[in-house]
Amino acid sequence: MEKSVGIVKTRQVTLAQPPADLRLENGRQFGPITIAYETYGHLNKEHTNAILILHALSGDSHAAGYHEGETKPGWWDAMVGPGKAFDTNIYHVICSNVLGGCQGSAGPSSIDPATNKPYGLNFPIITIADMVNCQKLLLDFLGIEKLYAIAGGSIGGMQVLQWAAAYPEMVRHAIPIAATLRHSAQQIAFDEVGRQAIMSDPEWNNGDYYGKKVPAKGLALARMIGHITYMSEFSMAEKFGRRLKSKEKYGFSFTQDFEVEGYLRYRGDSFVQRFDANSYLYITKAMDYFDLITDYKTDLFRGIKTRFLVLSFSSDWLYPPANSKEIVRALKRHGAEVSYCEIESNYGHDSFLVEFEEETFLIRNFLAAQKP
Amino acid sequence: MEKSVGIVKTRQVTLAQPPADLRLENGRQFGPITIAYETYGHLNKEHTNAILILHALSGDSHAAGYHEGETKPGWWDAMVGPGKAFDTNIYHVICSNVLGGCQGSAGPSSIDPATNKPYGLNFPIITIADMVNCQKLLLDFLGIEKLYAIAGGSIGGMQVLQWAAAYPEMVRHAIPIAATLRHSAQQIAFDEVGRQAIMSDPEWNNGDYYGKKVPAKGLALARMIGHITYMSEFSMAEKFGRRLKSKEKYGFSFTQDFEVEGYLRYRGDSFVQRFDANSYLYITKAMDYFDLITDYKTDLFRGIKTRFLVLSFSSDWLYPPANSKEIVRALKRHGAEVSYCEIESNYGHDSFLVEFEEETFLIRNFLAAQKP
Repeated sequence: MEKSVGIVKTRQVTLAQPPADLRLENGRQFGPITIAYETYGHLNKEHTNAILILHALSGDSHAAGYHEGETKPGWWDAMVGPGKAFDTNIYHVICSNVLGGCQGSAGPSSIDPATNKPYGLNFPIITIADMVNCQKLLLDFLGIEKLYAIAGGSIGGMQVLQWAAAYPEMVRHAIPIAATLRHSAQQIAFDEVGRQAIMSDPEWNNGDYYGKKVPAKGLALARMIGHITYMSEFSMAEKFGRRLKSKEKYGFSFTQDFEVEGYLRYRGDSFVQRFDANSYLYITKAMDYFDLITDYKTDLFRGIKTRFLVLSFSSDWLYPPANSKEIVRALKRHGAEVSYCEIESNYGHDSFLVEFEEETFLIRNFLAAQKP
Repeated sequence: MEKSVGIVKTRQVTLAQPPADLRLENGRQFGPITIAYETYGHLNKEHTNAILILHALSGDSHAAGYHEGETKPGWWDAMVGPGKAFDTNIYHVICSNVLGGCQGSAGPSSIDPATNKPYGLNFPIITIADMVNCQKLLLDFLGIEKLYAIAGGSIGGMQVLQWAAAYPEMVRHAIPIAATLRHSAQQIAFDEVGRQAIMSDPEWNNGDYYGKKVPAKGLALARMIGHITYMSEFSMAEKFGRRLKSKEKYGFSFTQDFEVEGYLRYRGDSFVQRFDANSYLYITKAMDYFDLITDYKTDLFRGIKTRFLVLSFSSDWLYPPANSKEIVRALKRHGAEVSYCEIESNYGHDSFLVEFEEETFLIRNFLAAQKP
């Protein structure tokens, strides 16, 4: 636990209590909304050292440290802690589970107070902007008016961009990693196939499966598809190649012959243990709706004072460097202060959860250029 | 029907009649084997002008011309016919449905003579080599001892390579298009997810669904996944972008919002009308087992006299140009005569079914350099 934030606890707060409920992008008023979050390091007296970390599709609010009795640290523990990239000796780091999630924040598996049953498909369709607006309510609750920085990879990076677009005056530094300004046709296509996998599973039962058998096969399939897109061709070749699960030659049956098949099956099955299929539908839909270019047009990032560090990874083919360069162009159009770095890595989209040394180097220096 | 081979008929022949049944790679003796095939143009007296065309995963023996009463020509009609790349005024062109297929050749949906019921999973697991050995039996039956050329894209290209490796003395010219010497981990991964989609469908019923409901959802899903890999990111962006199916803004439901979603669903559903789910399992498994490098080691292409034209497409990320360059290297190691061309195209793996002008130009000149 050296250089760890140590034992941490997830907290929950219920926000958007009616009549102050949240107006969602779909027009619906929604509340109350429970949000799960964790914090690390101390908020300074002036409340100027807060950093908001935003998680990816399958992540949660447990970014760093250890939950009591557990040996696995948070998902970005290598990046958040004393002396680390997001240095908890200097910064007060916050991470919350997204709206629509299934790790303590309001989502389709939460209890609908109107019926005392899980929402299921009665949960409203949400967007990245709705997620960010919930995070804004959380910051209001925590008494934080301005963030020293926001950072996140993948859909976390999309939230970073939404924050900068919607609340530029609240954000001093923004670090979108392996992200995009809008979902492309191919990105939508992969998400849609994942959703179809879930919705084709008879156990899905139109989203009403809580307390019954879950759509395990559909969700596992969706995750398997996702995993292929998170890795690079190279990293798959390096990790598995054509290695067989048994030492014999091919099995000549439809059981798994290759290690890569076993790995995908394992990742799919273990995902089912920790993630809700409906949350997968809701969050991927939010990703597909994400389109800052159409939503903001030429106003996007106009007059923004936020300093940006845009990061991409050379072998990421799901959110390729071209997507990040589009972010840089959109920022530069209005003269924003932006640094861009394409990190050489073979790990594909997953690189942001692997290339800690390079990320630490870049992020630490970027954040240290100013003072909280 | 200008420059068409006109009305054509699919023929069937039953080969590998016991006791002359075929020894499969899995060790099993198998027969009888019915093979569906079509021919175009005339076989010359010397039997030296035959060209074997090999179809891709979802293709069939109907490569050119029209079936009586139909308006849609064969799948490579733009390439096969009088004056076309495979000029039926000069060559005798043959195309057969692969072993394991569902378009007239023996496959899991065929009747097992031992039980008088469809094979289902009692059909043996087959390999690319088994497919090629069946084509060899077909040529024996047709009295063709040497092929002027063999050509095919994707899994058709793998069969081209298998032909050249196993029967080099029978092949004067070989044209593997968008192919590979062996399936990579990523290629296996995509296939495995497609198979899991089918096998997760309860209607699949362990392969025993003939005469009952077919695993339509699973097969459609597999096809949707496949389609994403057949297109390029660019061609998807160009064809669909983020265009919505209706003119309104997002539907805020899990019905399809985007044109790309509707397209994938359509392609998935229409595939179910014409393809057998078990054949999808068998053929993708054969692709995954394909590995000429391990099977032949340094003997691969040693002393080969066949002339090669290796074609790839710049935007093909499923069987990228790097795979084709590996073919070229393996051939060059033993001094084979090989031309390589990477065709600039935005259509991804599907390019070989789109870029007819460029393919025609290259293939016609390649074939015309010698005389049948």
